[in-house]
Amino acid sequence: MCATCGCSVTEHDHGHTVTLEQKVLAHNDKLAERNREWLVGQDILAINLMSSPGSGKTTLLERTIRDLAGGPEIAVVEGDQETEFDADRIRATGCRVVQLNTGAGCHLDAEMLHRALHSLDPRPGSLVFVENVGNLVCPALFDLGESGRAVVMSVTEGADKPLKYPHMFRTADVVLLNKVDLLPYVDFAVDRFREYLNRVNPTVELLQVSATRGDGIRDWYTWLSERKSR
Amino acid sequence: MCATCGCSVTEHDHGHTVTLEQKVLAHNDKLAERNREWLVGQDILAINLMSSPGSGKTTLLERTIRDLAGGPEIAVVEGDQETEFDADRIRATGCRVVQLNTGAGCHLDAEMLHRALHSLDPRPGSLVFVENVGNLVCPALFDLGESGRAVVMSVTEGADKPLKYPHMFRTADVVLLNKVDLLPYVDFAVDRFREYLNRVNPTVELLQVSATRGDGIRDWYTWLSERKSR
Repeated sequence: MCATCGCSVTEHDHGHTVTLEQKVLAHNDKLAERNREWLVGQDILAINLMSSPGSGKTTLLERTIRDLAGGPEIAVVEGDQETEFDADRIRATGCRVVQLNTGAGCHLDAEMLHRALHSLDPRPGSLVFVENVGNLVCPALFDLGESGRAVVMSVTEGADKPLKYPHMFRTADVVLLNKVDLLPYVDFAVDRFREYLNRVNPTVELLQVSATRGDGIRDWYTWLSERKSR
Repeated sequence: MCATCGCSVTEHDHGHTVTLEQKVLAHNDKLAERNREWLVGQDILAINLMSSPGSGKTTLLERTIRDLAGGPEIAVVEGDQETEFDADRIRATGCRVVQLNTGAGCHLDAEMLHRALHSLDPRPGSLVFVENVGNLVCPALFDLGESGRAVVMSVTEGADKPLKYPHMFRTADVVLLNKVDLLPYVDFAVDRFREYLNRVNPTVELLQVSATRGDGIRDWYTWLSERKSR
């Protein structure tokens, strides 16, 4: 297991690596706990949005911000290897946003979120979305101190993904099956997807949505609202 | 930079990490060079196929194997976090395949390919496809000793990806823009994609294909054939 991504490449240096991995994850967990305490103290709901590249996280956020205007303030942390593209899209909705560029890095961590929250300074009672780096593998291992985890998956990605990437789907509080408007054009069995998802995560909530067309989007707002009032 | 994925989480332990990272990548590069020498000696063309989850790598391979039957033998190394799903699909084509499961790991490395080649024992003059773990980030950093790198991207993922994930696109010898049969139903500007791709990789070849319907697939076979005869 690699220190940050859990990969097994470093077998040749096993003892060393395990020590480093434990140190890195323990350090991350400590910072995540601090983020969590601060967020709870401020009554802020922070949702960690994770997915493959191009599953529609930013489009989902654009629609969510516009539809929920007038409710609690929304602020966004954008994670990408490079570019400010997503931050620019979010900014165009009038929402405050901080872009984190990870360079060669493959996920956000608790330290990055800590710094982003300092810069963002979200209001007490607000809603913070953290759009993680598009990667169905590594972000699953890093607790950010978030209030909940939403995994977005597009119907174009195939129904087998929960079993092929179980760490990500196991960690989710809610899964948004996105781009259901494309269901007529792709070979995707929703029932099989649900069965595979429940095998790795029996209690997760599954919402079928289209972030571009709006199908099922009210279920997402209901989920957020229930999570906020817990 | 993390030892295996280049992430920047381990800043708090910088000296230690950089040393480990250098050790891991140097070790990988040494094994990759050994793989490369062996493959060249055997006149085997080994293509490292990389993409996001669900971009269509396995479907592309199924079609390629069926269409190129009668030519040089084809064998496949399948990389996934979990399951034998993809190996089963490849096996159904009559092709020999080895499945590598990485567990929590996020990419294949040269040592894994070395072991897989031992087990697969491909014939001299054959064609070996290595389907990497679905991940547009980490696999880019790991030389496997392959003869060439093909990055598959689906039109459903959005035209901005080359700039957002530059490490992956910079490393490609050929990019297959897949699922062009879905172009009428998604917002994807091919010209913008090409422009972004060429910004990070001016010499890469771009092929527009549909692995399910067959559009442009001959260009892929031509690319393979030219690569084989170099």
